[in-house]
Amino acid sequence: MSITETPIRLPIPPLPKGFRVGGGHAGLKRNPTREDVSLIVSDQPATAAAVYTTNLVFAAPVAFDRARTPGEGFRAIAINSGNANACTGTRGLDDCRSMAAAAASRLDVPEAGVLVLSTGIIGEFLPLEKIRAGIDMVAGRLGSDSDAVVTAARGMMTTDTRPKLSGSSFQAGGRTYTLFGMAKGAAMVGPRMATMLGIILTDATVLPADSQRLLGEATEQTFNCVSVDGHTSTNDTVLLLANGAVGGPPLAGKDLELFAKALSDACEALAREIADDGEGATHVLRIEVTGCPTRDEARQIARTVADSPLVKTAIHGADPNWGRIVSAAGYSGVKFDPDRLVLRVNGILLFRDGQPVAFDAGKVSDSIRSARETLIELELHSGRESIRFYSSDLTAEYVHLNADYHT
Amino acid sequence: MSITETPIRLPIPPLPKGFRVGGGHAGLKRNPTREDVSLIVSDQPATAAAVYTTNLVFAAPVAFDRARTPGEGFRAIAINSGNANACTGTRGLDDCRSMAAAAASRLDVPEAGVLVLSTGIIGEFLPLEKIRAGIDMVAGRLGSDSDAVVTAARGMMTTDTRPKLSGSSFQAGGRTYTLFGMAKGAAMVGPRMATMLGIILTDATVLPADSQRLLGEATEQTFNCVSVDGHTSTNDTVLLLANGAVGGPPLAGKDLELFAKALSDACEALAREIADDGEGATHVLRIEVTGCPTRDEARQIARTVADSPLVKTAIHGADPNWGRIVSAAGYSGVKFDPDRLVLRVNGILLFRDGQPVAFDAGKVSDSIRSARETLIELELHSGRESIRFYSSDLTAEYVHLNADYHT
Repeated sequence: MSITETPIRLPIPPLPKGFRVGGGHAGLKRNPTREDVSLIVSDQPATAAAVYTTNLVFAAPVAFDRARTPGEGFRAIAINSGNANACTGTRGLDDCRSMAAAAASRLDVPEAGVLVLSTGIIGEFLPLEKIRAGIDMVAGRLGSDSDAVVTAARGMMTTDTRPKLSGSSFQAGGRTYTLFGMAKGAAMVGPRMATMLGIILTDATVLPADSQRLLGEATEQTFNCVSVDGHTSTNDTVLLLANGAVGGPPLAGKDLELFAKALSDACEALAREIADDGEGATHVLRIEVTGCPTRDEARQIARTVADSPLVKTAIHGADPNWGRIVSAAGYSGVKFDPDRLVLRVNGILLFRDGQPVAFDAGKVSDSIRSARETLIELELHSGRESIRFYSSDLTAEYVHLNADYHT
Repeated sequence: MSITETPIRLPIPPLPKGFRVGGGHAGLKRNPTREDVSLIVSDQPATAAAVYTTNLVFAAPVAFDRARTPGEGFRAIAINSGNANACTGTRGLDDCRSMAAAAASRLDVPEAGVLVLSTGIIGEFLPLEKIRAGIDMVAGRLGSDSDAVVTAARGMMTTDTRPKLSGSSFQAGGRTYTLFGMAKGAAMVGPRMATMLGIILTDATVLPADSQRLLGEATEQTFNCVSVDGHTSTNDTVLLLANGAVGGPPLAGKDLELFAKALSDACEALAREIADDGEGATHVLRIEVTGCPTRDEARQIARTVADSPLVKTAIHGADPNWGRIVSAAGYSGVKFDPDRLVLRVNGILLFRDGQPVAFDAGKVSDSIRSARETLIELELHSGRESIRFYSSDLTAEYVHLNADYHT
């Protein structure tokens, strides 16, 4: 299978203070222009929080990291792509330890301060010699400039066509803090994260408990609200490292809220990028469900619409097929009154009072065809909770990519 | 959109005694070679049972028929394709009444003895004049031979490439009874029936309560175990008419069990045919999940595997991608021990003890490539309940058909 690269979204966000990163090709991927090993290094111990896949069949690195987070004293993340180290039994877990030990040794940090991430093919053992050689190589070229950031982000890509990055800064207590995020994921992406890896770095000081709580909340509203194909994978992980390199006391009160906002924005930007880079996608679907009694119900409706192959193909065909959207909401399992449901596509009213309204189908089609993003708004008029959900359309290209990607 | 027809499966099963059927073109579909109005007529009053869509957004004919079944005294079913009479408000319900009245008047039967079925585009009012003219025409050419059966079955097709028929006979109390079934459905087919219409006819005598109970049980194990795209529609209906034309008392005891078996077999044959005729399908997936604590859990796992675009594209590509199957089971929401899971594809062991076994991938690929049906067996080793589920693979042709089918 060959992936056609697409241009990275500019500008490349800056790394927070005290982090160095890098990536390189170690031979896990066949194509020598594709990085497959990356390192994230913090010059001082960082707190770490994490959210993992809910799949019962979870990969060795998930088991390995889950035992270490949340916590403090972290110095590095060792990453490989091309091999997920999933369904590899006890040897898989041993291989995680070897990978962490190799990074610890080369970087001269405690082994307990290393986390590992893997993504790629399932059911094969890690090629440890290649990974060790890759870690050696990448450790020798760590940096904090754009090139270093891009190669590090490329080192965790699989079928992604480009690295996904986000960044922002915020001020608190007279100091300026930086937040940086990178992610991978283009298929086997379903709510509850799927084959998605996300790394968020900050130079703020954040207590592990705060970090874990805020990452959980942000993930729930962002990475858990994105679906390419509804398929939750074995390796999903989002890690948040806060190294406090800017100095200052642990964030609290309003400062912590500013951090929470920056974190949530970074996660949302990355989640949207994942849907945008969905395999074969020609459209991002932004599905906003409002007026629900509970947020879980809003999410369930949004997810059902997002995962309907009929909705996804309709958007691909620029077809304002309100019937497929309304009927998908209707079989979501959430109870609501269809006569109070209001549907808009790209701001144009299509359905209310249990029936379609007279609308200019050509105009709606044109609005779908002419933009990368299609906005689907469903208002239930039965509560105050809402959700925003991202998905991608379903194309023949998705089928080609996935019918030809062999184990 | 143009549908390429495929040959009907032979032989054409015989109609039970006392039924006449027919179909014709009344102009709801553009192509004049496609029937779009059908009638099913019983020469004597029949009992009727029915199972309907669980979608909250249900069509007018579902509301109309639901108020009449289960019951007795039924003489006719009036059917149209090309227009679903869904999301049409109170006028939709009025149109059902007009359609039933037109059939009652033309056939000289009580209006209360007529049921209606519609399938096709949602959100447009029925073209009643065309339907009335169609009913007039079809009523003049009712019959019980193969031609009549085929035109009647074609009259409820939408994107189906061929009529779906099944039939059998059984003996009870010295009498021979006949069971006949016909169905439509090729997409918007998800568990809980989706855009699927099914009609079962028998010349046995069956009490309405027995008929309703047995149809519910049969549907649960057959039509509710088939998924093309997981999308439950607004119009799903399965009707069972028993007219007692062979004579004899209402079936009871062992005779009723024989009937139940014939009914279940007919429903399963039709359900499998629907998956086989899934839009763009090149493979039928038969998913057998065994060893579960409950049948609902077995169904949930089967359905999750059946609806995974990654599993569906893998089978299309003849790829024995056990990782996609195992991880789909893992995110189904059912708790089980992945280390006890055993996976076979076309009888070949791929996965057990939490890891893939050494298997001949070429041999499995060949077995997938060379047969229309792919058998996926998942054994959980944690109970005695099981389910059989049918699905179809996902192809670029599915995307083309559904991206170009406009409202």
